[in-house]
Amino acid sequence: MEYSRTENELVMLPGPVTVSPRILRALSKPVINHRGEEFAALYRECVELLKYVFQTGNDIFVLSGSGTCAMEAAVGNVLGIGHGSKVVTIANGKFGERLKEIAERYGVVVPVEFEWGLPIDLEAVKRALEEEKEVRAVTLVHNETSVGMLNPAREIGKLARKYDALFILDCITSIGGTDVPVDKLGVDIAIVGSQKCLGMPPGLSAVSVSERAWEVIEENKGKVPYYMDLQAYKRSFEKGQTPYTPALPLFFALKEALEIIKEEGLENRIKRHKSMAEAVRAAVLSLRLDLFPRLDEFSEYSNTVTAVRIPNGITDDQLRGGMKKLGIVIAGGQERLKGKIFRIATMGNISARDILTAIQALEGVLAKHGVIESVGTGVEAARKTFGL
Amino acid sequence: MEYSRTENELVMLPGPVTVSPRILRALSKPVINHRGEEFAALYRECVELLKYVFQTGNDIFVLSGSGTCAMEAAVGNVLGIGHGSKVVTIANGKFGERLKEIAERYGVVVPVEFEWGLPIDLEAVKRALEEEKEVRAVTLVHNETSVGMLNPAREIGKLARKYDALFILDCITSIGGTDVPVDKLGVDIAIVGSQKCLGMPPGLSAVSVSERAWEVIEENKGKVPYYMDLQAYKRSFEKGQTPYTPALPLFFALKEALEIIKEEGLENRIKRHKSMAEAVRAAVLSLRLDLFPRLDEFSEYSNTVTAVRIPNGITDDQLRGGMKKLGIVIAGGQERLKGKIFRIATMGNISARDILTAIQALEGVLAKHGVIESVGTGVEAARKTFGL
Repeated sequence: MEYSRTENELVMLPGPVTVSPRILRALSKPVINHRGEEFAALYRECVELLKYVFQTGNDIFVLSGSGTCAMEAAVGNVLGIGHGSKVVTIANGKFGERLKEIAERYGVVVPVEFEWGLPIDLEAVKRALEEEKEVRAVTLVHNETSVGMLNPAREIGKLARKYDALFILDCITSIGGTDVPVDKLGVDIAIVGSQKCLGMPPGLSAVSVSERAWEVIEENKGKVPYYMDLQAYKRSFEKGQTPYTPALPLFFALKEALEIIKEEGLENRIKRHKSMAEAVRAAVLSLRLDLFPRLDEFSEYSNTVTAVRIPNGITDDQLRGGMKKLGIVIAGGQERLKGKIFRIATMGNISARDILTAIQALEGVLAKHGVIESVGTGVEAARKTFGL
Repeated sequence: MEYSRTENELVMLPGPVTVSPRILRALSKPVINHRGEEFAALYRECVELLKYVFQTGNDIFVLSGSGTCAMEAAVGNVLGIGHGSKVVTIANGKFGERLKEIAERYGVVVPVEFEWGLPIDLEAVKRALEEEKEVRAVTLVHNETSVGMLNPAREIGKLARKYDALFILDCITSIGGTDVPVDKLGVDIAIVGSQKCLGMPPGLSAVSVSERAWEVIEENKGKVPYYMDLQAYKRSFEKGQTPYTPALPLFFALKEALEIIKEEGLENRIKRHKSMAEAVRAAVLSLRLDLFPRLDEFSEYSNTVTAVRIPNGITDDQLRGGMKKLGIVIAGGQERLKGKIFRIATMGNISARDILTAIQALEGVLAKHGVIESVGTGVEAARKTFGL
């Protein structure tokens, strides 16, 4: 209770993540007129900075809703209800499956599914696109946090383009922490969530829309969700407005978070995320724990969250409960992976200090339950990868 | 610029409204695990307090989205796409029309429309319900801020019940400031927005659902929006969770805002709102300005926003621009009422002091443009209604 009473937990979930004081303070700014010039300037600045982070020249809009809201915006606007639009949904984890669930409400789904944590078989995707005619879009989760895996965006993007389908890439947990050159990858709709690598609290998401996607969206005569109607967002943005009232405190925080990214430099930020995930992997491997995902030549370990099998000799409750007693909140497995894995997220504005703190605590908890004999190896391995 | 530079504007818009420091501070609380016990306790407390404010025993859910998001949740879940469900949408202002626009994406709309600012003809509503068969729902905006009018919820509720239709009442700007006994009025789905009479920043909304509404929603085989799927909210609430990541800072603020309401007492709060709107009306009438809405025996002036015709001799820009230079942000007319009316909102945790400040400024601006000859009458009239 102590850490939550003093509001002093180190949150290392794959969203939400610990938020810097600088960003937390921005939340407390008094509200302004969301139809006035001050807000228009704020929104436009956020969008310009987001274009830098997305590495795109495409339109970008900020939605007052979570990543799931942005997922539905992407899928809903492209498919529209009533057309029977076909969509290939690729999944090897929870969020890939969520995109499928959303797509089922809007069109005809051609699922290409794999065991959670196994790599995506590009041939299977190609086959689906080959066999089905007129597939309107392909959906992929870039960084599948449920299994700690980075999926092959470049290769899937090429396939989508080849078969003339739009490429919807869920970058909710990759943009801002992993190299996601949206335009180079040919991503037609990319989405990000606020509470992940941007280092903000939850509540906002952003969506980029390519020219190619606009052509489809603007011709779409099917029913699209009102709150996430991207054409309404486009019209309102001409005046620097959102179509419906924006969650102002989160916009203030977004600007602060994006300025921090600009100051750090996107390239440095991506390097830092890469090194933080490497440090966690080095530590858990040195403790002889197993990483959960199985990779092939096209997939990679996530740069923003590390999924580890729970070793024999300790339960999920003991492991995460022990960490929590030490003031560190990490994630368990979701749904079918509950009790089988734990996950340490290293997203946003956290530091080497935070990671060494978490590894030190993990060692302590594992040693207490006799899973490892002595402590220090993990911290040492992590520290070395940082060159510290 | 001065007031926005020092973040010191008095915002008297019909949302967002000036937020108390106590609530602003709550926003800056560090994030917590939204799947943990601390969040579950927070969410449950918020819901209990919301039940008090809604005066209902019905289920209530908090959505991470604006009032429009909640409007779509209400309409979308009840109608579902693909059934051809019929809905009577009543409108005498912008937000009534918005409910119609949303309903058009989900079902077959039977519009009952009136000029903006004119009262709702109950006979016309009755006729629509009589002539159409199997109307699934009736939608009404309780407090139509676009015209400053309180619509007859009780009478429409009775009609809906008589014709066995669900009653969806948009209480976005009434709950917390106007007496809205949801259960007594027979409201099946009521919604509120955070940035109105609750006195919070924008970004959240809440929805109450009656047993009668659940029966319809649970039998609904049509497509409903994923992000606003009320059945998902219901399932998640059993564990004290939201189905998708909640906008945490706004939940912290919501609890603080609801505690302030509990401390003030709902009845006192409603009285205070009533007296604040009365004070503004007394002031503008004493200045010989015209109130915009035309009332009948069933409609009332809004208790939370006062709509006034812009008098001859001054433009909208001069009036609102002059107020803004004095650090007070009030609203203009929307769409067809742009340039014709101005609106002063008196919602949330603002005070007699704020209102006297605003009236004093309004007098100054009107006098400067020769619309009134001398100042003081308005402030005097307002002060008297407060008994101060």
